[in-house]
Amino acid sequence: MKAIGRLHVITDMVLQRRFTHRELATLAIRGGADTIQYRSKSESVRTLLEEAAGVRDVCREHGVTFIVNDRVDVAMAVEADGVHLGRSDLPIETARRLLGPDRIVGGTVRNVEHLQEAERLGADYVGLGPVFRTGSKRVDHEELGLDLVREVCSRARIPVIAIAGITISNAAAVVAAGAYGIAVIGAVAAADNPDDAAADLLRCIGGCE
Amino acid sequence: MKAIGRLHVITDMVLQRRFTHRELATLAIRGGADTIQYRSKSESVRTLLEEAAGVRDVCREHGVTFIVNDRVDVAMAVEADGVHLGRSDLPIETARRLLGPDRIVGGTVRNVEHLQEAERLGADYVGLGPVFRTGSKRVDHEELGLDLVREVCSRARIPVIAIAGITISNAAAVVAAGAYGIAVIGAVAAADNPDDAAADLLRCIGGCE
Repeated sequence: MKAIGRLHVITDMVLQRRFTHRELATLAIRGGADTIQYRSKSESVRTLLEEAAGVRDVCREHGVTFIVNDRVDVAMAVEADGVHLGRSDLPIETARRLLGPDRIVGGTVRNVEHLQEAERLGADYVGLGPVFRTGSKRVDHEELGLDLVREVCSRARIPVIAIAGITISNAAAVVAAGAYGIAVIGAVAAADNPDDAAADLLRCIGGCE
Repeated sequence: MKAIGRLHVITDMVLQRRFTHRELATLAIRGGADTIQYRSKSESVRTLLEEAAGVRDVCREHGVTFIVNDRVDVAMAVEADGVHLGRSDLPIETARRLLGPDRIVGGTVRNVEHLQEAERLGADYVGLGPVFRTGSKRVDHEELGLDLVREVCSRARIPVIAIAGITISNAAAVVAAGAYGIAVIGAVAAADNPDDAAADLLRCIGGCE
């Protein structure tokens, strides 16, 4: 199984149209992202396959972990390293059964109960959020804040990747609260220079303490 | 591999809301349908999984072939006998790779060129249509008519299942034109008695000549 990185950059194109999924992945990797999550809400599965294959190629070239959001069939078709499943996507245990033991299965959680369920069902990591407010996704849920991040991470036996509203201003605090890593959309995708933004985030979660 | 039946009933709920997918499948099987294709455009994959599992259970109980439309991941998750792929769904060769040699892969075609491509890519059968006008799907394409059905079927090395606008008035003619079988939505789903309608169709394509 590929490593679950600490800086996950999601290629969702909600916030910007300057770059394609592949271009964003390339810039993020240049800045030091060690995991790329391809996320697209396109209705055409042919488009999903094409875009995902482009991101996969860039990730492979650089030895970066490549995760597909939501669609397990697309992940299998492009031979992704894993999938990330939201709470209304395919269940974790189903994805595990389809993907086997060697691919990464991650799932979104919002509290300790979700975390423990995900662990029981065989998740390799969880995405914990929304940690803070964010502009890239309609907010269905109250932001968790650092105290809840601390609580969930203290109970976790698998890596916790914090997500939503994470920037260079709070990334170090999120990791100090126990998160293994962070997942970002806007902090990289909407930055003037996505590669510099990724590099700054990497410093915050790694060597800047 | 399960048999590719001759009377495919599609459980799409565009035309009626009287019956659930599972109920429609049950009635169709009671009338003699030998293949059920679960088709739903629900956005929630959890709903797809639940509905598909219900249809699967009924099909298994009666030894009827169970096909899932479009979503290969759902087909795999519920261990369907196969998938049917529209022309903008996952490519046939990709589905074959994911499903292996023992599951049925069918694809929609509109002409001889499509047919031969589907055969080359490893389809087990094709759905040929739209043969006639239909009320259950937005018409993006000119109806083929019986002459084209005859032409495509004469070139086919795999079973051709005719689809769109097929009723007891024309089912016998479609089979006489070379179709191995028929796929219907409205002719069963919108009938007063879906089970009787399926039985009538079965007579038309089978023993009524």
